[in-house]
Amino acid sequence: MLGRILTSLLPTITARAHCDLPCGVYHPMQARIEAESVKAIIAKYQSSDDEVFRQRAVLIKEQRAELVKHHLWVLWTDYFKPEHVAQYPQIHDLIWQATKLAGASGAKGGMDPDVAQQLLDKIEEISEIFWETSPTEAMWH
Amino acid sequence: MLGRILTSLLPTITARAHCDLPCGVYHPMQARIEAESVKAIIAKYQSSDDEVFRQRAVLIKEQRAELVKHHLWVLWTDYFKPEHVAQYPQIHDLIWQATKLAGASGAKGGMDPDVAQQLLDKIEEISEIFWETSPTEAMWH
Amino acid sequence: MLGRILTSLLPTITARAHCDLPCGVYHPMQARIEAESVKAIIAKYQSSDDEVFRQRAVLIKEQRAELVKHHLWVLWTDYFKPEHVAQYPQIHDLIWQATKLAGASGAKGGMDPDVAQQLLDKIEEISEIFWETSPTEAMWH
Amino acid sequence: MLGRILTSLLPTITARAHCDLPCGVYHPMQARIEAESVKAIIAKYQSSDDEVFRQRAVLIKEQRAELVKHHLWVLWTDYFKPEHVAQYPQIHDLIWQATKLAGASGAKGGMDPDVAQQLLDKIEEISEIFWETSPTEAMWH
Amino acid sequence: MLGRILTSLLPTITARAHCDLPCGVYHPMQARIEAESVKAIIAKYQSSDDEVFRQRAVLIKEQRAELVKHHLWVLWTDYFKPEHVAQYPQIHDLIWQATKLAGASGAKGGMDPDVAQQLLDKIEEISEIFWETSPTEAMWH
Amino acid sequence: MLGRILTSLLPTITARAHCDLPCGVYHPMQARIEAESVKAIIAKYQSSDDEVFRQRAVLIKEQRAELVKHHLWVLWTDYFKPEHVAQYPQIHDLIWQATKLAGASGAKGGMDPDVAQQLLDKIEEISEIFWETSPTEAMWH
Repeated sequence: MLGRILTSLLPTITARAHCDLPCGVYHPMQARIEAESVKAIIAKYQSSDDEVFRQRAVLIKEQRAELVKHHLWVLWTDYFKPEHVAQYPQIHDLIWQATKLAGASGAKGGMDPDVAQQLLDKIEEISEIFWETSPTEAMWH
Repeated sequence: MLGRILTSLLPTITARAHCDLPCGVYHPMQARIEAESVKAIIAKYQSSDDEVFRQRAVLIKEQRAELVKHHLWVLWTDYFKPEHVAQYPQIHDLIWQATKLAGASGAKGGMDPDVAQQLLDKIEEISEIFWETSPTEAMWH
Repeated sequence: MLGRILTSLLPTITARAHCDLPCGVYHPMQARIEAESVKAIIAKYQSSDDEVFRQRAVLIKEQRAELVKHHLWVLWTDYFKPEHVAQYPQIHDLIWQATKLAGASGAKGGMDPDVAQQLLDKIEEISEIFWETSPTEAMWH
Repeated sequence: MLGRILTSLLPTITARAHCDLPCGVYHPMQARIEAESVKAIIAKYQSSDDEVFRQRAVLIKEQRAELVKHHLWVLWTDYFKPEHVAQYPQIHDLIWQATKLAGASGAKGGMDPDVAQQLLDKIEEISEIFWETSPTEAMWH
Repeated sequence: MLGRILTSLLPTITARAHCDLPCGVYHPMQARIEAESVKAIIAKYQSSDDEVFRQRAVLIKEQRAELVKHHLWVLWTDYFKPEHVAQYPQIHDLIWQATKLAGASGAKGGMDPDVAQQLLDKIEEISEIFWETSPTEAMWH
Repeated sequence: MLGRILTSLLPTITARAHCDLPCGVYHPMQARIEAESVKAIIAKYQSSDDEVFRQRAVLIKEQRAELVKHHLWVLWTDYFKPEHVAQYPQIHDLIWQATKLAGASGAKGGMDPDVAQQLLDKIEEISEIFWETSPTEAMWH
């Protein structure tokens, strides 16, 4: 199916550092997957009336949202270079807003599905710039 | 470019649980990204003669390889269901081999690029079964 | 008393790797202790009507159950060898069931003491095979 | 064999809190297993001339030794009560010495097998007092 | 203002190891900041009637209180030397009481602001002895 | 001595959130202490010829430098508000530079004491703005 075909073509996708060696491997998917989790957890919380399940949802959402913040921070510090910021001066404010959206004043602080979606949208904006700044010739093999 | 187009189409990709709520969001990319890191770290280690850099490479590779093991274990326990194993009985052995390949007897234990590639190939095999077992109708938006 | 005598004789117990050097030291007790914690936490939760205590119980049980999963996964990947699986083909499914029992569909997902006991029983089954496969001559000193 | 018989009788062993709920489950084995690892890692380091293996040994020993410190600290703060210290006033100094032996001035700081053994011996002393202070009637089932 | 002036003069403050190399850098502020967090979290919990906020407060307080325990344990094992204990024999019991106050029987176990304050007071007592035992000539630059 | 007097006056220092409840407690000292550690580790590495000690220094410096990045990121996202950035537009770039200085291209990447000092200087600049933006009336008690 479409998903599999897309995934199999992913070797052609450029990626950059995330482990600060620098290892030279990075992908906005790391932040996105965790943000999708946050959104899914919120949906499940809203449709459950099981007290223990709902408490676990609060706890697990806190962890995934923290991971969103971490992946975005690493992207900001380790991936983006001065030449990128020169070309896309909105990088700082965009990532700043996204990490705030993943935190206490955003996705961590409540169970609002719209906030989770806003976080995903912000990550998509960051992702767009990421791809604009990634050289097409650098590939995974 | 191709990478960006593929990424933008990713909303159509199905995913399953990885945070054990279950949150219902999972993607083999999590294991793959870390395995790509391992491969990249090994390449950089081999082409460097800086003692501190090489020691950092050993340390960071250990961390990324451990994350590969973790993502695969979570996939094994939290994603795969009995009906999947019934259809693909090789699931247990395949993931078992992959996690061993990420560990002391594989990618952790040395700096051989071929071992890192074998690990990526095993993850691709697991990924194939993952997509075969994911229902097409469950989408991210 | 019996417990102390048993513990003092433990130097005669074989053990295998758990830190993936491989360090050559492993013991099913690591998984068992955490599973006993899960069971104890559930018992305390059921007999308390203190809201904060019960919320802490949910949170701490989540952590201990995750540790059960981790210790079992490490046992599966790092300890068990192909010759063990050849002799005890049920190893994969047994550990798979145990890790699921420690997760969202088992001990993490609720506060049922029977589920916690089932988890302990499964760990005991795994432990039996562990001891069957450990050479008697390898000792701690 | 002896090891298995001993392990199967372990359900009769008393244990106390380690997860600070308090969950009421604790066992000196947690500290001991990690200290055995440290000892084994040192032995393997001394008999290897593989540069990467030796660097991994340094890194992994650091982690296991830190876990020894943690398990002993938890035992000190969460398990031992004023009535225990009244009866065994050496508790504070004994655990203090043990945690130092697991740290930079001890097992972390070098690759001396004698230091690793001293650490195990100190843990055994602590274990003795632990069992002296554990009520025989509290059992795991 | 006063706070800033004080902070800018901090380069003249002596500090000792906390990362067990030993790195030679340590400061009671690490424990204190986390204890201030615990106190603040309790205050916010008491004045909120938002169910999710209160559950997050329980979870986050658990983490900060655990960090208080950790920083104090490290101070006990890595900073304090036998000559300090000889001069201030109350060190063991003082830190023991403080770590218990940060745990299940203290700040972790409930939402009592007085307990949080007692914890801060105990940390201040430990801090006093820390400064008494720190040589004035060792400075940060 | 001066250090103690300063520390005892610290209750008058304002602080802000770092645990994302928000708990309302934060202090630039968290980042600074870890950066002092990095500097101290580098000094010790340079004056040692013990192979194991030097490898431990590389590993421990990696951990402390990562903590510097974390504390600065949290300050950036959780503490600084739009009104602060309006008044001090250099906040984004300053913290960006500081986190890069703590990473692979800075303090993590080598053993240069000047780089460690540059990191401390950058943290001091951030600290200055932090104090300029903290209301004097909010105190710890």
